[in-house]
Amino acid sequence: MMAVMTTDQAPQQAARGPRERMVRSAVALFCVRGVSGTGLREIVEHAQAPRGSLQHYFPGGKEQLVAEALALAGHAAGRRVARLQDADGPQTPSAVFAAMVTVWRRALVASNYARGCPVVAAASDTAAASDVLREAADAAFRAWQAPIETALVKAGVPAERTAALALLMLSALEGAIVLARTRQDPTPLDAVLAELAPLLDGAVSGADRQPGRTAT
Amino acid sequence: MMAVMTTDQAPQQAARGPRERMVRSAVALFCVRGVSGTGLREIVEHAQAPRGSLQHYFPGGKEQLVAEALALAGHAAGRRVARLQDADGPQTPSAVFAAMVTVWRRALVASNYARGCPVVAAASDTAAASDVLREAADAAFRAWQAPIETALVKAGVPAERTAALALLMLSALEGAIVLARTRQDPTPLDAVLAELAPLLDGAVSGADRQPGRTAT
Repeated sequence: MMAVMTTDQAPQQAARGPRERMVRSAVALFCVRGVSGTGLREIVEHAQAPRGSLQHYFPGGKEQLVAEALALAGHAAGRRVARLQDADGPQTPSAVFAAMVTVWRRALVASNYARGCPVVAAASDTAAASDVLREAADAAFRAWQAPIETALVKAGVPAERTAALALLMLSALEGAIVLARTRQDPTPLDAVLAELAPLLDGAVSGADRQPGRTAT
Repeated sequence: MMAVMTTDQAPQQAARGPRERMVRSAVALFCVRGVSGTGLREIVEHAQAPRGSLQHYFPGGKEQLVAEALALAGHAAGRRVARLQDADGPQTPSAVFAAMVTVWRRALVASNYARGCPVVAAASDTAAASDVLREAADAAFRAWQAPIETALVKAGVPAERTAALALLMLSALEGAIVLARTRQDPTPLDAVLAELAPLLDGAVSGADRQPGRTAT
């Protein structure tokens, strides 16, 4: 059970109502087994919700529950980025990325590399089959991307480059999570952080680097 | 049917034996629906293989077929990188990355963003459940990473930095594929290519950039 809980989820889970517990259990199970690989019965059992409560709380069935789980995951990731700013003031771009990478590095190590990103999982097995779920995954990524862009602007990155850099940060992190899971070691996460940190901080002044491609 | 074929697969598929067709069909279906989301019957039908032939050719069942599909996908990706070198001589690091991104950009657009990476799909829904499949996904990524590292060495990247840059290229590309699928537009692929190209080419001389993190 613990292996499929997010690190900040287990202690509070019991105090929540069955509906919220089901959404959180869905997130936790999708992280490990993907969306197609997770049965509704497993979610109900993991959430210790009454049998039959799924139909009661989610009349739209699995699609509704998955969409809510993706929304929760996307907003949680976005809030983590926003909170970093609120607490300590503007961060360098590399500090923002380091904070993002560190959360996932810890979760991967703590779960013995069982736990990946639920939005990547949904995108990989359900995005082509369901427009509702593809749009939910897209919205989850955008809920994460927006506060990253805000953080980059506050750090002094020129506005015309923040979208591309936020997409690079998200892409590199998500890919590195997948590679770290299959290797069962954190090297890919450490590599993307070490290699991207100078690029991200170099974007602040905008003086010594070209935005985008240089002539070769 | 066409939407779940890889671009270089459809014309030759009929000329292959049923065993090879099943492995190729598995790759094509995993790209779209993930591993958990793809039934064995779908693979047999997609491959136009005789019913019951799965048990005949793959006595290890779905796990054996998935492992072979991941091996095929990993080696195909690795061979594409190696062939680029063979045909045109050493490439700049950004040209190697551009070639990798372009293959996926085309496949995504041609499939209306239905087709993602089968190794990411397997990592997302089966890596935690099966050590055999996790190791098969790891081997597939390594079969892709090795020729990337060789290409970077040939381009003049210092040996101590090739592993980290290859992991960055793979991570950024895999993440961008996922984001492009959910957005249904190629912006994430274009962003990672534009932003990483100067970093990759800057690693060649090794003179004007620190390998890894700079002091902030």
